[in-house]
Amino acid sequence: MTGEHSSKQYDMDLETIRSKVLMMGGLVESHFHDAMSCFRTGNAEQAEAVIQSDLEVNRLEVSLDDMCSHLIVKRQPAANDLRTVMATGKVITDLERIGDESTKIARIAKESQNGRRVNSMFNGHETVRVLASSVADMLHQSLDAFARLDDAKAVQLIAQDAIIDNDFRSIMRNLITFMMEDPSTISYALNALWVAKAIERIGDHAKNIAEHTIYIVEGKDIRHSDYVAVKQDQKN
Amino acid sequence: MTGEHSSKQYDMDLETIRSKVLMMGGLVESHFHDAMSCFRTGNAEQAEAVIQSDLEVNRLEVSLDDMCSHLIVKRQPAANDLRTVMATGKVITDLERIGDESTKIARIAKESQNGRRVNSMFNGHETVRVLASSVADMLHQSLDAFARLDDAKAVQLIAQDAIIDNDFRSIMRNLITFMMEDPSTISYALNALWVAKAIERIGDHAKNIAEHTIYIVEGKDIRHSDYVAVKQDQKN
Repeated sequence: MTGEHSSKQYDMDLETIRSKVLMMGGLVESHFHDAMSCFRTGNAEQAEAVIQSDLEVNRLEVSLDDMCSHLIVKRQPAANDLRTVMATGKVITDLERIGDESTKIARIAKESQNGRRVNSMFNGHETVRVLASSVADMLHQSLDAFARLDDAKAVQLIAQDAIIDNDFRSIMRNLITFMMEDPSTISYALNALWVAKAIERIGDHAKNIAEHTIYIVEGKDIRHSDYVAVKQDQKN
Repeated sequence: MTGEHSSKQYDMDLETIRSKVLMMGGLVESHFHDAMSCFRTGNAEQAEAVIQSDLEVNRLEVSLDDMCSHLIVKRQPAANDLRTVMATGKVITDLERIGDESTKIARIAKESQNGRRVNSMFNGHETVRVLASSVADMLHQSLDAFARLDDAKAVQLIAQDAIIDNDFRSIMRNLITFMMEDPSTISYALNALWVAKAIERIGDHAKNIAEHTIYIVEGKDIRHSDYVAVKQDQKN
């Protein structure tokens, strides 16, 4: 996958890990989706189910980290193979964090009962709906890029995160206006604000997954670099 | 350090990495301290300096990750040695995230110019001062526990994080009251709320460092487990 290999067995072990990671990815995607629908409907039972289902994600993190360590000890991979294992380990961490953020959304949904309630002017879920669907799309694409080792797509995704951050800031301004115009909406607006923050962080983790994918494919650690800006310029 | 070793050279390489990680730890500690004093004084120049100094932390993360990979490839460590390297890699990630949170605090300090301003009733910095000092202390102790591989201390620190989370929630209730009583304080109170959130997250990362330390010393991955609760019961 990333150059010549020390052993065929290594490939098989790595593929087992990669497919488990993608399964974990599918799981956190659906938890995020469920958490958002709880925030819309205010269904406390469903919210509790999302919170409980995060335990499975946590178990996956621990067992996958363990599988990565065993792979390294057993197969003693060469530098370029080790790179893939290390980056896969980082993807696992990001997926677990995404699970945590979905759990936060579910907790808020459970406490606030309903993102919609309050008054005809204010709809907590509505303020974050568009952001949530762009981030859900970004997360799906980042897992796709990781699955196919598509570094070109990964570069696009990293650039996309800046748009997400802008959307988050405008939601915040929007909510501040609501709070000032009608202080009775403050605690509801704050719930929406925490949900928006959690969604924005899920976008950050999706971006990290894209960065790890580029590291696997190109062997470049592009974190904190202007790599993406440069790539974008090359396109224009 | 964690059992018999494959090579003396391995010990020396690992010690080089560990001392660099502790240096990185000292750096993020001082950035957190400086960011908080910016939020108190509203000194925009100092805030900008904190934001710039995070670049050094980012460079350290990339180069230390690289050193860990090289160590594994060059020394092909046995399972228990590899455990130390992997956990050290996770400590590096947590330190970089702490740097990010301090940068957020500095950005807010820069934008809001002064955490104190507004009115005689509301003092943004004052609302988070105690939380900030408990978290600064927790961070320092977690780096200490990592440096000395003190798993007993690490257990105490993990238990401590629950107190931090409670303090954060009471600050939030406190700020909501302020906003409701005087809507003109809303945007200032939100700045204080974001700062409180960043501080609370630094506490989470300090807790992670304590968990990684226990993993290095005892070889147990206690994340998402009731390990600490059990240890605490044993003490009583």
